[in-house]
Amino acid sequence: MAMVKLVEERDANDQVRKVYDDIKQVFGLTFVPNLFKAMGHHPAYLEATWARVKTVMGPGALDRKTKEIIALAVSATNGCEYCVNAHGAALKALGLGDAEITEVMAVVDLFNGFNRFIDGMLIESDLKP
Amino acid sequence: MAMVKLVEERDANDQVRKVYDDIKQVFGLTFVPNLFKAMGHHPAYLEATWARVKTVMGPGALDRKTKEIIALAVSATNGCEYCVNAHGAALKALGLGDAEITEVMAVVDLFNGFNRFIDGMLIESDLKP
Amino acid sequence: MAMVKLVEERDANDQVRKVYDDIKQVFGLTFVPNLFKAMGHHPAYLEATWARVKTVMGPGALDRKTKEIIALAVSATNGCEYCVNAHGAALKALGLGDAEITEVMAVVDLFNGFNRFIDGMLIESDLKP
Amino acid sequence: MAMVKLVEERDANDQVRKVYDDIKQVFGLTFVPNLFKAMGHHPAYLEATWARVKTVMGPGALDRKTKEIIALAVSATNGCEYCVNAHGAALKALGLGDAEITEVMAVVDLFNGFNRFIDGMLIESDLKP
Amino acid sequence: MAMVKLVEERDANDQVRKVYDDIKQVFGLTFVPNLFKAMGHHPAYLEATWARVKTVMGPGALDRKTKEIIALAVSATNGCEYCVNAHGAALKALGLGDAEITEVMAVVDLFNGFNRFIDGMLIESDLKP
Amino acid sequence: MAMVKLVEERDANDQVRKVYDDIKQVFGLTFVPNLFKAMGHHPAYLEATWARVKTVMGPGALDRKTKEIIALAVSATNGCEYCVNAHGAALKALGLGDAEITEVMAVVDLFNGFNRFIDGMLIESDLKP
Repeated sequence: MAMVKLVEERDANDQVRKVYDDIKQVFGLTFVPNLFKAMGHHPAYLEATWARVKTVMGPGALDRKTKEIIALAVSATNGCEYCVNAHGAALKALGLGDAEITEVMAVVDLFNGFNRFIDGMLIESDLKP
Repeated sequence: MAMVKLVEERDANDQVRKVYDDIKQVFGLTFVPNLFKAMGHHPAYLEATWARVKTVMGPGALDRKTKEIIALAVSATNGCEYCVNAHGAALKALGLGDAEITEVMAVVDLFNGFNRFIDGMLIESDLKP
Repeated sequence: MAMVKLVEERDANDQVRKVYDDIKQVFGLTFVPNLFKAMGHHPAYLEATWARVKTVMGPGALDRKTKEIIALAVSATNGCEYCVNAHGAALKALGLGDAEITEVMAVVDLFNGFNRFIDGMLIESDLKP
Repeated sequence: MAMVKLVEERDANDQVRKVYDDIKQVFGLTFVPNLFKAMGHHPAYLEATWARVKTVMGPGALDRKTKEIIALAVSATNGCEYCVNAHGAALKALGLGDAEITEVMAVVDLFNGFNRFIDGMLIESDLKP
Repeated sequence: MAMVKLVEERDANDQVRKVYDDIKQVFGLTFVPNLFKAMGHHPAYLEATWARVKTVMGPGALDRKTKEIIALAVSATNGCEYCVNAHGAALKALGLGDAEITEVMAVVDLFNGFNRFIDGMLIESDLKP
Repeated sequence: MAMVKLVEERDANDQVRKVYDDIKQVFGLTFVPNLFKAMGHHPAYLEATWARVKTVMGPGALDRKTKEIIALAVSATNGCEYCVNAHGAALKALGLGDAEITEVMAVVDLFNGFNRFIDGMLIESDLKP
């Protein structure tokens, strides 16, 4: 059970419903993901958040696949199960197979390990951007 | 000051020196990064770790740039300063400019926020791979 | 299934039972939460921990609602499901509605994102307390 | 040194400068914090992010002080030094003294400990919102 | 459901099956843990990872029990449920009882709390190795 | 600079000074660590926290060295620099050399990596305590 009663489409006010409709169209979904239905309790936050999602995930120097790979790597590092499911689904829809997803996660494994070894050993920086 | 006295090249035993030489050659560096000099205290671990680095970061379905982007995203999520410096340097050497790095980090920002909103709201999964 | 067999009230020794009784009274519960039943295997730790809970969560400069909001924000940031449930329940008992909880979580979302952008961009401090 | 060259006010394009001016006015600052100067490399992201900051941190059911306390608790939990400095400064400007800040952090200490004990002991939920 | 279809023993190629057989023998298991079956999609990574597991968890200055305690502490701190289950099972097989596991977790609780208090209070180092 | 003005011994009230004296005696130090001087702003919290430290770190089924190793592993996983320094110093005082500390950190590296691979691959539990 979610922390809050999700704001279903039929119960949404006009501001919220307009965002819901845009979410469904942009993502090509027949339903609004639960994440956004929870945000429905704070319409201005939902609206500003959705505008930012479109900006950050929209066209730019990086393609959509790379952005979803980043999202999966971040979600795995944070151990967020909903998020890992969502970005895994997105990557499969973009054509990634099991071998490629395992390759992403091998990199996630490697550097989560190194990050903590380095912090625990108080390694001083010798490689700078 | 690091947690342990780093094992410098001149003090390394043969097993360690062989790995050090390979690290310098593969990365095209004139020195061994501190991270690996700390591992010099446990030669078998250094050797097995370096073999794994070459496997994980070597040729595969993902290109090197994508792997370094994952490494940067993971390191930012963990707040590891040495690691962020190292992978930022690697990405700049691969040709990423300030706009592209900022775009990577915008995605990191977005999903670190969403991960914790979703966990804190106990959102149930409706998007599955 | 928990990692350890929980120490039920009927199996508790006198030191543990005394703490259990105080927990039920202070929180107005008819049962002892599982968290404390697990601590029952280490009576001195249970006792010292409970004394500290009463000190930290008791009257002070911050009111109880603010302290539970902090607890929820921390638990969401750590992705601890039991904890999010417990502090969400406490906040609802204190009168917070769905809109207010969503507002708390919007702040949690915002700053989890910023924290990682800032660490990943190696931003130098220009705002000091 | 930051990961990217910060976009200074004199080098900002019109879209960025307009946001910079609003940031200075809303926060009552004579300079633009480094965080936003880094975002200057991605003007649309800066603009959408700043709109969201104003929405999330603006008037609502929770007052500004509570929101800054949440921000400090989140930043401490993530170990983000820049962020802890920034929100500590904001709370001091809002009148919090050393005793109150220590009280906030005592709650942060308590529940970061409990979160991990609970996850490590696989405690099953018995308190639901 | 896992993110990828696990590579079962009957579907493994020779390189993968050889590692699977060694895993079962070293751990004294009649099956291959799911963790390694997922790695089966990237045979070179599985092989290099398993070689490293044997090196890190094999004989050295620290005994196996201490290494499993570290693994449990890390897994609790990261909130990884599969991992907590696995290392808890290993420690019970090594003879740890409920009181000892609770004692491990009391230390995990204490220092997860202190870590975040210290970061949130910007405490300067006065104890150096 | 710390978030709060540290409460120095000469400025401490009787309740705080009594705890300070005990800390110096138990740890065999000539000064009070900054961590506890920050807690001096909340005397009841300092007192309850110190009582708990003595209970958790005192004699039990695990020896002091194992407890400090857990503390170091947790602190590395959280990236807390002050804490890593403090527990590294404690372990060196207990006789651990560079090889043993590197061995601890190799285990920390291994399982931080595995934790995130497992969470990111949605691996289902097949090893239970």
